[in-house]
Order: sequence, then structure tokens, then C-alpha cells
Amino acid sequence: MRTIETIAEVKEARREFQGVVGFVPTMGYLHEGHLALVRRARMESDYVVVSIFVNPTQFGPQEDFQRYPKDIPRDLGLLKKEGVDLVFIPSVEQMYPAGFSTYVEEGRLTRRREGASRPTHLRGVTTVVAKLFNIIEPTRAYFGQKDAQQALVVKKMVDDLNMNLEIVAVPTVREADGLAMSSRNTYLNAQERQAATILWKSLCLAEEVWAQGERDANRVREKMTKLIESEPLASIDYVSIADAWALGELEEILPPALVSLAVKIGPVRLIDNVTLR
Amino acid sequence: MRTIETIAEVKEARREFQGVVGFVPTMGYLHEGHLALVRRARMESDYVVVSIFVNPTQFGPQEDFQRYPKDIPRDLGLLKKEGVDLVFIPSVEQMYPAGFSTYVEEGRLTRRREGASRPTHLRGVTTVVAKLFNIIEPTRAYFGQKDAQQALVVKKMVDDLNMNLEIVAVPTVREADGLAMSSRNTYLNAQERQAATILWKSLCLAEEVWAQGERDANRVREKMTKLIESEPLASIDYVSIADAWALGELEEILPPALVSLAVKIGPVRLIDNVTLR
Repeated sequence: MRTIETIAEVKEARREFQGVVGFVPTMGYLHEGHLALVRRARMESDYVVVSIFVNPTQFGPQEDFQRYPKDIPRDLGLLKKEGVDLVFIPSVEQMYPAGFSTYVEEGRLTRRREGASRPTHLRGVTTVVAKLFNIIEPTRAYFGQKDAQQALVVKKMVDDLNMNLEIVAVPTVREADGLAMSSRNTYLNAQERQAATILWKSLCLAEEVWAQGERDANRVREKMTKLIESEPLASIDYVSIADAWALGELEEILPPALVSLAVKIGPVRLIDNVTLR
Repeated sequence: MRTIETIAEVKEARREFQGVVGFVPTMGYLHEGHLALVRRARMESDYVVVSIFVNPTQFGPQEDFQRYPKDIPRDLGLLKKEGVDLVFIPSVEQMYPAGFSTYVEEGRLTRRREGASRPTHLRGVTTVVAKLFNIIEPTRAYFGQKDAQQALVVKKMVDDLNMNLEIVAVPTVREADGLAMSSRNTYLNAQERQAATILWKSLCLAEEVWAQGERDANRVREKMTKLIESEPLASIDYVSIADAWALGELEEILPPALVSLAVKIGPVRLIDNVTLR
């Protein structure tokens, strides 16, 4: 497994890869969710490339860029075990040299949910992902379904800009009690960790009432909201029920519908989602 | 010479090109300026691809998108003579299907001049060019120095987004009296055509006073302005003297400096530039 830190070197290394290249972009501090992406890539590709880059342009000014958790040696150990061929770990200066001024922005799917709550977040994601796609030139790139809006927006960018790769969304990996794996879970203290199960519980509630025949999106949102509000440490950022393609907010639930939410547990903002089919 | 109208087919045709691919994006209605780009590409490439696409996203609502001149049979005849391998002529629906929502935008070089006068013009250019680069995957792409700001902005986009090609800017081709070749010259009536020489005359004046030792940008701008205002059919949009890399407006002229201007001759907006070295 090679580890490369500069764009020039990774482009050179890429030229030697003849065949299917699977790419997993990450911000590091890897967990089973990331490894599920890597395993899927490994299964489907001749070469697997993983990037580790905590991307400053997708963090807001008050967000956790500075304290985002980091453990590169541990990450590299995990990736080596999965048979990864190349790990790209650029510096911020490599990716955003002085005077950087070009952004890629999707304007429809990004308006609500994460786009509304974190105004420049998704623009930062599309920009860094466009850069990484140009650097790595993968056949396929793998994204976690946990960040459902992100995966959809990246797919839309690839379609709109005619990029030469396929986006694969991989199911969310969960802890035993249903909490979606996330590097940010590490911010939770024991009490908050317990309270954080309310996200998954509220998504299960949505699936349950949907299975029972409920089609009124507002009633489902209300039930979820009520349940989350019963948890004293939780405060809701948004609860959304939207069509799973264009992410238009729904009144009547028509499958496939994406039920997604962002909830602060104490100071820690968590997101999760399920698709009603 | 093949002519292709769909993105899928051109991507397929591209796969057969092994070697250096030179690409000239155009809006058609070709003149000697375009042909200079094609000849340069032909000289340096194994395969030459030309696109003809009048790109709606780079026109403002009050601009000449609907009446932009068009003569595809004549264009194809000219390109065939130059030994072009592939001409890509997509429809608007091919390039911008319903729901299109992703744009590429450069935010520094685009703020003044064409960016200020035509607010979404350069965003339209970077977006369509990014798409065409992904579709054609050229080794090099050729742009006319006449649209100097456009060429710089495209270069910046390629650098910032780590795109895998080189941008080549080719010197402006002029009529015998100095008027820069442009498809929009066709809009000029005989009287306006005569008046249009004022752009080149004012650029020559700038070069002359620069050669005489003038270093004060405001004095040069004033002299150019005065000369242009002596032409009754001319009305100035902007006269700019900027550093030729970052396009910051200058007080003291330090070479290389880009002297650029946009002037309306009657109803027709024309642009031109020279670089002081």
C-alpha cells in the first residue's frame, strides 16, 4: 500500500493503474462505515484508492474543523488490512493553494436540510470531490448512504458536468443499538451517547407508521418530532420527508421517500436517514 | 471528419483516440480567429476535436442568444479543410437537460470587466467548458486571446479543480484595419464597421504611450477614453488596465499588463485587448 501526499505524485501513480479504479473519499478517523465502502470498492475494482482529507471548505466558521478527530496511523493500519492500493493524504495547501477561487455548486438539491443548516457545506463537498475525481480519475466512487443528501448531490454533479465515473451509495453501518456510525460520535459523552439513539428510534417510528399505512407526511413529522423532544438532551435542527430523487419536501408520502433528520445531542450535531419504499 | 450530436456517442468516439487530443470549443459561425486555433491544435495533436455550441448559460436575458449567427454547413466545410477529426454539435437539451443545476464558478478573476458587465456570463463559460472537457477529455484546449479574461478564468478553473489538460491561448487574428475577428462583427452595418476600428486604435494608443514611458494607468485610461469618445457611434462599457495574471486593476503599469476594453458601437458590444510587456 502506497501513501502519497502530493497531487503530482498521485496523478503519476494513477497512470500505472490499468483497469477498474474504485475510490473512497474520506475525512479519516475511519470506522466500520468507511470500511464498508472500502470493502465494496475492493470487491468491484482492480485498484482501490482512499483519500484522507479533512476538507476546510465544507466546514462553517463555527464548526469543528479545528478539532475534527484524527488518527492517521490507525487509519493506515485499517486500510492496509482491507487491501487498499493507494492512500492519498494531501495537505490543505496542496488542495487549496493561495488564491484558490473556483467552486462547484449544485443549486437545487442543496437548498434545504444540510444546505439550509450549513450554507457552504455542500458547495465545499462538491468542490473537493470534483477536485479528487480529477486527481484520481476513478471508475467508481463510493459514498455512505448516511450522508444521503451528499450522495445525491454528488451524483447530480457527476450527471450535470458529464464526469466520467459512477457514484455508488452504500448502506449505513450502525452500532448494535442503531446509532449510525460517524466519526463525530466520538464527541459524545456516555450520557449523550445514550440519548443519541433517539435519532434511530424516530426513524424506526417513521418506518413503522409508514408500514401501518400512514401517508400524511406532516403527521409522520409530528410523531417523530414529539418522540425526539421527549429526549431532554436532544434539539431538532430539521426533520424532513422528501422525495428520494429531487429532495422536494412532501405532503403526501410517495415511495421512495427519504426521511432524514439532523439533531443536536448536547453540543454534537448528528444526522441520519431511512428511505421509505 | 465525423460529426456527432450526442454526448454518449462522442464519449464512445473519444475512446478510440490514442494519443494527443487537441480541442477547440466554439460557438460556430467560424472566422479566421477560430481557424487559427484549429491550425494550432492540428499542428500539436494526433486528433483534433471542435465543438460548435451556442451556450445559453453564458448569455444574459437581454443578450443576443436567440439571434447569434449560425451557419453549420459552412462551418463544417471550413473544419474539414483544416483536417479536423471530430466535430461535436450538441443540442441545448443534450447539454442542459431538464433539472440541470450544477455550475462551476470562479470568484476572483471574474469580478470585474466581463464579469461585472455580464454577471452570469463567465459562470456560463466555466460551466460549459468544464462539461466539454469531461466529455472530450482533451490533452490541450485552445482559446483565443481576444477573450483574454475568459482564457485566464478557464486556466484558473483548470488549475483550481486539478483538471487533466493544458490551456493554450492563441493570439488574436485581426482584419487589415486592426478590428479583432469576431462572429459578432457580422452585426455591424457599414458605418458601424468603420467606427469599430476605434477599439484597436485606442489599444494602439495605449501601446504607444506605454512605449514612450508612460507608467500612470489612469493617464493611459483617460487618453484611451478621450479617443474612443471622439467616435460618435461608440459608447464605453469599460476600459481596464490590469495585471495580466490576477486581473487586479492597476494604478502604476507594471508589465505584463492587460489593457482590455468593451465598447458598444451602435447596438453591438465589442471587446478587445493587448498586453503591455
